[in-house]
Amino acid sequence: MAAELTAHELIARHRPTLDQALEAIRTRAYWSPHPEHPKAYGENGSLDMAAGKAAFDALLGTRLDLGQPGTDGWVDGETSPYGLELGVSYPHADPDELLPAMKAGMRAWRDAGAETRAVVCLEILKRISDRTMEFAQAVMHTSGQAFMMAFQAGGPHAQDRGMEAVAYAYVEQVRTPDTAEWTKPQGKRDPLALTKHFTPVPRGVALVIGCNTFPTWNGYPGLFASLATGNAVLVKPHPRAVLPLALTVQVARQVLTESGFDANLVALAAERPGEGIAKTLATRPEIRIIDYTGSTEFGDWLEGNARQAQVYTEKAGVNSVIVESTDDYRGMLANLAFSLSLYSGQMCTTPQNLVIPRGGIGTDQGHKSFDEVVADLAQAVDGLLGDDTRANALLGAIVNPDVKARLEAAAGLGEVALASREITHPEFPGAVVRTPVIVKLDGSKPDAEAAYMSECFGPVSFAVAVDSADDAAGLLRRTIREKGAMTVGAYTTSPEVEEAVREVCLEEAAQLSLNLTGGVYVNQTAAFSDFHGSGGNAAANAALCDGAFVANRFRVVEVRKEA
Amino acid sequence: MAAELTAHELIARHRPTLDQALEAIRTRAYWSPHPEHPKAYGENGSLDMAAGKAAFDALLGTRLDLGQPGTDGWVDGETSPYGLELGVSYPHADPDELLPAMKAGMRAWRDAGAETRAVVCLEILKRISDRTMEFAQAVMHTSGQAFMMAFQAGGPHAQDRGMEAVAYAYVEQVRTPDTAEWTKPQGKRDPLALTKHFTPVPRGVALVIGCNTFPTWNGYPGLFASLATGNAVLVKPHPRAVLPLALTVQVARQVLTESGFDANLVALAAERPGEGIAKTLATRPEIRIIDYTGSTEFGDWLEGNARQAQVYTEKAGVNSVIVESTDDYRGMLANLAFSLSLYSGQMCTTPQNLVIPRGGIGTDQGHKSFDEVVADLAQAVDGLLGDDTRANALLGAIVNPDVKARLEAAAGLGEVALASREITHPEFPGAVVRTPVIVKLDGSKPDAEAAYMSECFGPVSFAVAVDSADDAAGLLRRTIREKGAMTVGAYTTSPEVEEAVREVCLEEAAQLSLNLTGGVYVNQTAAFSDFHGSGGNAAANAALCDGAFVANRFRVVEVRKEA
Repeated sequence: MAAELTAHELIARHRPTLDQALEAIRTRAYWSPHPEHPKAYGENGSLDMAAGKAAFDALLGTRLDLGQPGTDGWVDGETSPYGLELGVSYPHADPDELLPAMKAGMRAWRDAGAETRAVVCLEILKRISDRTMEFAQAVMHTSGQAFMMAFQAGGPHAQDRGMEAVAYAYVEQVRTPDTAEWTKPQGKRDPLALTKHFTPVPRGVALVIGCNTFPTWNGYPGLFASLATGNAVLVKPHPRAVLPLALTVQVARQVLTESGFDANLVALAAERPGEGIAKTLATRPEIRIIDYTGSTEFGDWLEGNARQAQVYTEKAGVNSVIVESTDDYRGMLANLAFSLSLYSGQMCTTPQNLVIPRGGIGTDQGHKSFDEVVADLAQAVDGLLGDDTRANALLGAIVNPDVKARLEAAAGLGEVALASREITHPEFPGAVVRTPVIVKLDGSKPDAEAAYMSECFGPVSFAVAVDSADDAAGLLRRTIREKGAMTVGAYTTSPEVEEAVREVCLEEAAQLSLNLTGGVYVNQTAAFSDFHGSGGNAAANAALCDGAFVANRFRVVEVRKEA
Repeated sequence: MAAELTAHELIARHRPTLDQALEAIRTRAYWSPHPEHPKAYGENGSLDMAAGKAAFDALLGTRLDLGQPGTDGWVDGETSPYGLELGVSYPHADPDELLPAMKAGMRAWRDAGAETRAVVCLEILKRISDRTMEFAQAVMHTSGQAFMMAFQAGGPHAQDRGMEAVAYAYVEQVRTPDTAEWTKPQGKRDPLALTKHFTPVPRGVALVIGCNTFPTWNGYPGLFASLATGNAVLVKPHPRAVLPLALTVQVARQVLTESGFDANLVALAAERPGEGIAKTLATRPEIRIIDYTGSTEFGDWLEGNARQAQVYTEKAGVNSVIVESTDDYRGMLANLAFSLSLYSGQMCTTPQNLVIPRGGIGTDQGHKSFDEVVADLAQAVDGLLGDDTRANALLGAIVNPDVKARLEAAAGLGEVALASREITHPEFPGAVVRTPVIVKLDGSKPDAEAAYMSECFGPVSFAVAVDSADDAAGLLRRTIREKGAMTVGAYTTSPEVEEAVREVCLEEAAQLSLNLTGGVYVNQTAAFSDFHGSGGNAAANAALCDGAFVANRFRVVEVRKEA
């Protein structure tokens, strides 16, 4: 069967975008091909908000048949954090049938070469982009993100991260030429001459283990990095967040088929409740790459047990913001209040520990005591979330009962500076919506350490009193070294303190945001420019996205013969 | 103290060479800045052969004091495979003192940036290059390589591999700019604007665990890749091959000091007999990178236990050459005979299994039966090594008693097609010099499998009879998959067989040399052009040298603030 979409056609369509992406990762200036304003959707074949909602509604209660080999049943059971039963059922796979079928198409995929793989990946992303408004609903009703965030983070920002991975994968593969003529002089004798062919070859089947909170944003980098480097990709979504990745797999299979490749190069592995197939799949010999986002416990298990695979993990960490001084007190409070509130702090990048000298801080509004800083921050959060409509639009819903339980327990850990408040969602009364809690802790009290030195994932922050800026830097260093950190923030007008914090971050390999007071937040990173994580501390063994994230997903095989 | 060698001066001196190296790894055409003819040495400050010998002789029986902190004694005990007692003593280090001292200079080394680190590394290589003839003696009298090989492989070729690693490390670090201005449009509002600084940061102290047979060639890639990416490097040589790496450390420490950096960024960890410090060092928390060449057993141990480190291993493998047909029978025999003889087969790249259809092969000299092919190859080896002077110049000495024992045992594994012969070395009567043994095995007999499916490191080859070319390809696939392979060779005039072998190599990730009949051998790879290993099969988890070999030795830390 001739492909409906030739490589030639796909290259013509997407090569300019790939070139822009390559330039962006080189300069790290702002760039994105995926609009983040809802009004941009509805033209050129993309669904607008209403059409996206209608498409999502039409999926509810249906069977998403992906046509996968080895399907031995159907699984469902997703309940939206907003209360909706999705009722979508997905194929359950027998890995003994599915995995061999996934390998069948790998040779043709390998032989297609890096450029064709890149543009096929870009076509997949384009189709996903067109359905962004449908994906927004799917992400909202699995992660609990509020609609605007589900749309932006689950749509264009996730697509950006996927494309960034494609760009890195492409450039890594073409660093070595396809062919080289090697001629070595031999003095008066004839030179030695060899013709050498170099082929990037995949490692095997890659496994993406998705997470509940950011199924697409955290799933796309690994998925596209592995696919673009010639591997087949098996996607094992979180049981509470299947739909966004199932739709992704569906789109990928359609594009692969249309472009003449085997649909089974991308497949879904949904699981029955309590089945725990991630462990089984992760240790299969066919699985040679794993991308995982989730708990430290399971991440460590994967690193220790899936020894046949390259394992890329993003695990728990404890993010700190040092508040030492500022020349924009209001801006700082507003910026921090937003960071703590967004998606109820259910981001791996949300600050947890606000480390503040107990003697207070210097600001453009005069000296502020520790208690004043914390009270003013509490008030800033209260103000930001005072209106229920805005609160719902920012907070989203609590993703699962564990987060709710941690939030409720946090009030018992110290003096509550800001109590969590229950908010009713007008459209989804079943949604659990809560404002963040801020708890004061004394950094010099050993009994407080158990709280601030552990990740308390969710809308919980600790205002940790320390003796000095030096102590703050010391605690920061210890926290990153022992627990890892996806992000670090600092507010200071002192060049010495800035330098000390910077040095800690360089030595402990953590990404630092300094004195953010405007519309950029410590918990947000932009693809093509910001690294997500460093890959150098305990929170993650890889950064999104750099050469190390892609370079070991393939190998280069050389075939040489005499010229 | 002002540096004697400024970064500016080193950049002026070495940047052109670095640029040529960068171009070479991009085109993979022939290039080397290190001459491989002895006559090229003796000018421009380099030692000629006699001066190198004199320098080596002057080292014998002396103490090589590197001025390292934490030196708690002295160790010696190297005996040349040629019989000479070297009597050089080296510092023994207390890691509790040495490792912290090695970290002290890392900040300045990090802050120097990628380009300065690269040119300091190139200056180290230049100083080593000038002493190539001294290193040649040191490599000869630790590895047992014959002089010409010790000079070429231990000198210019090792220096090439080191420079290749520097080039990859440099280009990887400068893929991300130092600074980016990021400006994101916000419709009618002011754009968001951030200034971002990106800094490559080292992982920590890197450990290089050297091998007996190629102390410099296998040691330099990891050493220079780690140093060039900002790490300190602790070199733990093989107890029988300390001198070449101790001299390397000495040169590195001199250059670091002269260029204003801390000498302790590179240090030696020599060990007392039976001390086994590699395990202790490898699991120290300061050690974040390990490069190892040696047994599969210890390589597996490192991968399983040094979990705090990035571990790069080159382990055992079983290399095969498929002999199916040829249009240059004499050329093939001569080429194979040389490959089997060079350094008594004590190369990780030497062919072990010669896989030949039992019905014989087609050649330009008519059909040759299996027995004829094996007998003709035996005769070719005999001819090549018939003259004792030439034999000594090619074979070198047996590196240790284990190799000798394996060689002697091999004759009992099957029908001996070529018996090993003892050769007397005129200059070093203590040298154990042996010609290779070729043993015939029947690939269909299960009891033969134990022999040809295990690595028999040393001058032992098996002529394995198989039923067909298909069987040969099948055995090749199984051997690579189960045992790994650093090299694969094949002789065939059949496009179908070539394609089948090529496909096996692509699928199992092994480097293939086709129909070599001239002056290039399957067991030799050229830096800047050939990959050494693939990193994709059990023989090695890394290839020399590619992006994956360097990309995870550092991380990039971003510091962003509002513009």
